Parts: sequence; structure tokens; C-alpha cells
Amino acid sequence: MRMYDIIKKKRDGGELSKEEIAYFIGGVTDGSIPDYQISALCMAIYFKGMTVRETCDLTYAVRDSGDKLDFSSIRGIRADKHSTGGVGDKTSLVVAPIVASLGVKVAKMSGRGLGHTGGTIDKLEAIDGFRTTLSDAEFLKQVEKIGIAIVGQSKQFAPADKKLYALRDVTATVDSMPLIAASIMGKKLAADDDCIVLDVKTGSGSFMKSVEESKALARLMVDIGKNAGKKMVALITNMDRPLGYAIGNSLEVIEAIQTLRGNGPEDLTEVCVTLAGYMLSLADMGTPSEGIALARKAIADGSALEKLCEMVAAQGGDVRLIRDPARFKQAKYKREVCAPASGYLCRADAEAYGLSSLALGAGRNTAEDAIDYAAGILLHKKTGDAVRAGESIATLYSDDPASFDAAEQKLLAATEIGQRPADEPLVYDIVG
Amino acid sequence: MRMYDIIKKKRDGGELSKEEIAYFIGGVTDGSIPDYQISALCMAIYFKGMTVRETCDLTYAVRDSGDKLDFSSIRGIRADKHSTGGVGDKTSLVVAPIVASLGVKVAKMSGRGLGHTGGTIDKLEAIDGFRTTLSDAEFLKQVEKIGIAIVGQSKQFAPADKKLYALRDVTATVDSMPLIAASIMGKKLAADDDCIVLDVKTGSGSFMKSVEESKALARLMVDIGKNAGKKMVALITNMDRPLGYAIGNSLEVIEAIQTLRGNGPEDLTEVCVTLAGYMLSLADMGTPSEGIALARKAIADGSALEKLCEMVAAQGGDVRLIRDPARFKQAKYKREVCAPASGYLCRADAEAYGLSSLALGAGRNTAEDAIDYAAGILLHKKTGDAVRAGESIATLYSDDPASFDAAEQKLLAATEIGQRPADEPLVYDIVG
Repeated sequence: MRMYDIIKKKRDGGELSKEEIAYFIGGVTDGSIPDYQISALCMAIYFKGMTVRETCDLTYAVRDSGDKLDFSSIRGIRADKHSTGGVGDKTSLVVAPIVASLGVKVAKMSGRGLGHTGGTIDKLEAIDGFRTTLSDAEFLKQVEKIGIAIVGQSKQFAPADKKLYALRDVTATVDSMPLIAASIMGKKLAADDDCIVLDVKTGSGSFMKSVEESKALARLMVDIGKNAGKKMVALITNMDRPLGYAIGNSLEVIEAIQTLRGNGPEDLTEVCVTLAGYMLSLADMGTPSEGIALARKAIADGSALEKLCEMVAAQGGDVRLIRDPARFKQAKYKREVCAPASGYLCRADAEAYGLSSLALGAGRNTAEDAIDYAAGILLHKKTGDAVRAGESIATLYSDDPASFDAAEQKLLAATEIGQRPADEPLVYDIVG
Repeated sequence: MRMYDIIKKKRDGGELSKEEIAYFIGGVTDGSIPDYQISALCMAIYFKGMTVRETCDLTYAVRDSGDKLDFSSIRGIRADKHSTGGVGDKTSLVVAPIVASLGVKVAKMSGRGLGHTGGTIDKLEAIDGFRTTLSDAEFLKQVEKIGIAIVGQSKQFAPADKKLYALRDVTATVDSMPLIAASIMGKKLAADDDCIVLDVKTGSGSFMKSVEESKALARLMVDIGKNAGKKMVALITNMDRPLGYAIGNSLEVIEAIQTLRGNGPEDLTEVCVTLAGYMLSLADMGTPSEGIALARKAIADGSALEKLCEMVAAQGGDVRLIRDPARFKQAKYKREVCAPASGYLCRADAEAYGLSSLALGAGRNTAEDAIDYAAGILLHKKTGDAVRAGESIATLYSDDPASFDAAEQKLLAATEIGQRPADEPLVYDIVG
């Protein structure tokens, strides 16, 4: 088999065989296929696409390129959720404790933020003492004992994806549906869950800018997961605007705690209970509506918040922060961003808001950058709200006051005040 | 400027600016742009194409990436021909002496063969003692004195093309019209000619498999050359079948000599006098028909053959071989290939015949391979000829008898005997 023939076949619109895809991913993993042939094939795939069969084979080859987790020692049903990444998306911090408090096991591997999107592991590390690296034995023991653990990816999961993504990122071949699906699901399937709920974000802050594209990606990923024997469902949720009011690591943890106390923002609460409800339903705990009702109850009776406290304690974090979020370290400086006009907030572009938060120190431009956990943005207005000229629409937080001008500029450039906008759905669709 | 943005712009169908193309070719030449980004852009160009303006800018950037020749010291009009490469294509050995014998200067840089196509330099080296490497001073002095010199490319012509072509060759991005045009014309324009006649081959043995594609490539290259101030014309000629009867280095030199003696194959003679006629016409020696008549006369009166002898002598070659081609070293072994059936020869696939000759030792699989100058194929039948079962249709020559089986198999697999085929034109079109 020759990589040249594989590139040419795809370039000419052919369907690659399982063997050809295995040869490709094998060569990506062991380094025997040169980068210039990998990027040429990625560009050919960008233009010619892949069938569902090809995308499944690609995903499974990516999954099988590295380590896998074995959760078979965990009793009970294991469920996970995965978001395609958004701005202000702290749902994992809310959903995982809800579901675990109801008896479904959550053994979760999460990622770090890069660029305008945040990562669950960074947010958890905003809690003093919280350990995001556990040994396999510690991880499994904790899930067995309290039903939940969230750690970073210490293992060599899907190394082929790491290599492929790095190349796609510099060759303008990220925006390819089969390549996105294989990247996400290749990693996800390396963990040993029974049920997976995907949160496919749509809009400015996400990979997929249109609802139609997001639905197609969701359909593809659900099929890939089902084909691998998983129970799957995907929610298409709004990421044209940030989720909730908080963007930035400790700000988002605080908002997650408020949500688990029943005082969270309406949009965030709604998305969280819906995700949790579908996870519970996949885990044989009734219909989605029944699952959603169970999730609301776990918030109302405090059991979900208790579960978060248990997890934080088990992983060495300071539980006093969870009980009293005012104890979180505050940023040294803050600045109010005032509305330039009166009217209705009609646009608050999620990607630009994410980049504004990044400029304040809340995120990373490169994988090596340090994070300012207290930095970020607290919004006071959401799309659809009425605003008066001069009123604060957001507070910026940072230890670096020199960052305020650029961050404010980015935020205001992505904010529009005008006529009252039409309501946008929070959940566009469910793909099962 | 970032290479990422250039790739993305082309991927999305945008037109690259002159500055972006210069940045790209500059980075290819100095090695600052990594191979994986170069190959991704080549694949994007494969799918999205380039405008004539972009292709011109790409060509001139390639031309300017290395050394150039300065022919300004040569008095008179300088003309060249360039073939896109074919099988049995020994036209340069005939056309250059014809034109030079009529007073037009031919200062020619030629290439070596690779794969199924031959190269003029290899053919000339089949002549004992012939030096294909001359110093600049020797080269110019010889052209000044006898009006003709043919040498290999000793200079660093268009190094960007060398790098680009090597990458295209392994990433299935060779078959892109703007990339082919920029590669050919980038090198051609680095030499300092006034007039260029392009011989664009069409059919199985060439880059372009259809006449329409060949015409489009010819049009593009003629426009690129004219835009650079050259007098240009392109002939679209048939390369579905080999040109003439001889394939292989000394076999082709012998056939070229026969043609200069007026005893050459009809098709080869016709293509040679047509190419020469257009070169003469571009060099202000009348209409193309008048040029063709002059070319025929230069063959008939022996002056073209004398010019070849002069050149061979000037470059150290053994002129006795030209005067008496029977002196060429013969291959140690030969084999007759017999017609498997009676009927008419309806297909003699040029590419396959070239590969058969390669198998006999006449060509190179890699740039380092040594050549058996006496190896090759002498055809006894051409497409359209009647054949009887068992009659020899070709003789194979090689110093390696072990190569005969594979070579014969390749040749027979590409040969069809059946109903009398329709006549195919030799010259499909003229693009001026």
C-alpha cells in the first residue's frame, strides 16, 4: 500500500477502504508517513468528504492508536457528556454531580482550554488543592466509592489525533466534518462509557457556525458512537452568545455552584438539566422528561451540590470554597464596560467574548501559557435585555490592568445595541 | 503574512495576490515554509485552480527563484522549443540543427529522462565523448561560432520548482494546470530566448490525456510567455502512440540522423518540420508555411545534418557515429515481439511503451539510476498498419536478457489488434 495512491484516490472522490484508513492512521501514529502527505490527504478530505463508513473506520483507527481506559471494574452504568467547546460553558461542573448524585457513574476525562474556549480541567484547578491527575487505581477507586471523578488526560489517548490535529491546525483543514467527528469521537471512545450525551454547540463561538452543519455533525457522531455499541444522543445548543453570565475559570466555578444551589442563570440551568436528563434517560432512568425532573430535584434537594463537595474533597480540593464561593481569590483589578447607547442588546458574539477573556489572562494562546484563574468577564446583560447608555453591561477582571483596553475593545466590537431581537432557542434540536 | 491565511484563502476559492504568491515561493526557496503547508496549498490549488494572473505571478516567482541565463552577448534571434515530454520524442535532435542551419541561434538547455519519458541530454550522451556540461563561456562562444549548443542544466534554475515538483510528485498534486504551467514556463523563462515554440503532447504518454486539456494548458503557457515579452506559439501534438519507430537513447539518435538525411519516419519528419517552421516564423523568417518549406529544404540539402555534425564535434562527440550510425554500440541481446493475431494495429499506448523501454534499461526509475544507452524498442508497425499473426511488430534491445519478459508483457498488454482504426491527426491544433 502506498500513501500516494490513498491521496490520489481521495482526491478523485473515491471511498477509502478500512485497510487504507488503517494504513494511514498507523503511519501517522508511528511517524512513517511524512507530514506533507498527511496534510495533502487532509486537504483532499476537506474537499471530497468521507462517507459514514469511512468516518467510522477513521474514528476507530484513531481510537485504537493509543491507550484505552478499562472501566469494567466499576459497577453500574457509566455515562459521560462531551461538549464540542464553547464560551462560558461550565456545564460539566453542574451536570456530572447531578447525574452522579442519582447513582449513575461518571468517570470523566476532561481537557484544558485553548484559544477562545475554556476547559473543565482549568476550571477545576481554580479550586485550591484540587488534583486533576490521579493514578488509574485512585481514579477507579474514587468512582467506585463516590460515583464521580474528573481528571485530565494523563494517558496517551488517540496520539494519532494529536498529530493530525496539530497539522490540520496549521494547514486550514480543521473545518472538515469527518475530520472533526473522528477527532472528537476517536478520543471519546477511548474511554469506556456505556452512554454518551454530546453537546454540539452551534453559532459564532463554536466549530460549526450554522444549525444545519451542527445537526449533520451531531448525526455523524451519534452514528459513529452507536456503531461502536454506545448509547448516544446529541443536543444542538446555542453558542452564538456565551452560556450563563460568567466567563473565566473561578468565575465559572462560582456560577456552577450557584446553579447547583438553584440560583443559576436560567439558560445555564436549562441546558444543564436537559443534558443531565438525557444522560439519566440513556442510563435507563426513564424518559428524557423524567430524567430532567430527576435532575431538577437533585438541585432542589441539595444532593447534587453535596456530590460536588464530595468530589472536591476526594480530589484534595478546598471544600470551603464550594460552601462559600466568596472565599475564591479575587482578581486584583476590575473595569466596568458601559453600554455606548440605549436599546436592546442584540448581539454578544461568543467567540469575541471568549477572546476578550483570553486577553485578560483567563486562557491560553499556546499550550505552555500560564492562566490567571481569577481573570475573566462577568456579564450583566444577555442578548434580549434592555440596556441604558452608560450602564455597565459587563465587568472585566484581571491581575494585569494593561490588558483591559484590548479586552474592552474586543468586547465592545462584538456587542450590538439596537432593536429588540427575536428570541433564540437554547436547544435547537435533539439527535438520537 | 502567514502561510496559514494563504492556504485558507485558496481553499475558500480566493485569488492570491502577487505579494502572497511571492511570499509562498520565497518560503519554498529558502525553506522557511514547512513541506506540510506547501503540499496543503498545492492540493487546494488542485481543487480551486488559479486565474491567469495568479498563474503568471506564480511562474515569474518560480523563474526568479534562482539563476538566470544572459544571452545578450549572442548576436541574432534566439529561439527554443520545449516539449512537455513524450515517448520516442527525439524532435529536439532534429529541429535544433534545422533551425540553426538557417541562421537562428539555438542556445538550448535540456533535461534528462525520468519514468516513461526520455530526455534530450541522455540521448546526446549516447554519442561517445559528447559533453553535455559546458562552462557559460564555452556555451556562449559555441553558440556565437556555430549557432547551436545543447547542454544540461548545470545552473540552479528555478530551485523553487525543483522543491515544489518533488512534493507534488508524492502528494498527487502534479495534475494541476496552473502548477504544470508555472513549472514548465518558470524554468523556460529563466533562459534568455526571444522565441519559444511549445510542443504540448496530448494522449496516453503525456501529462494531459485530452486534447481539450492540452489546448487549455497550451493557451495558458503561451499567455504566460507573451506576458513576459516572448514570441510564443504552441503546437498540440499526438502522444497517444510513440513518435517515430525508435524508443531508447542511441536508437532515437539514429532515427534523428535518418530524419535529417530525409529518410525519417513520416510522423516524426512532419512534427519536426512543423516545429522548426514555427520557430523560423517567430524568428521573422516568413509565414509558418514558408518556415516549413525552409525546414524541408535544410533537410534536403544536407545543411541540417551538417549542423548536427558541427555541434557534436564542438561538444567533443564522435562525429563518425553521426556519419555512420551503424557504428553505435549495439545491445548484447534482442528479442522479437510477435503479433498475437492478424488485423490492424489499433492501439500502441505510448506510456506503456515508454515503461517497457524503461524496463529494458533505457530509462531511470530514480534520478540516480544508470542508463543502458543501447537499450530500447524498435517498432516495426505503427497504429493503422496491417499485421499478420506471428509477424514481428517490435524488436526489444537490452544488455539484460532478464528484462525481456516483463518488457514484452508490458508492450503486448498495451497493444491492440483489431479493426482498422480511424486516422488520428498528428498535429491537433496551433495555439498562438
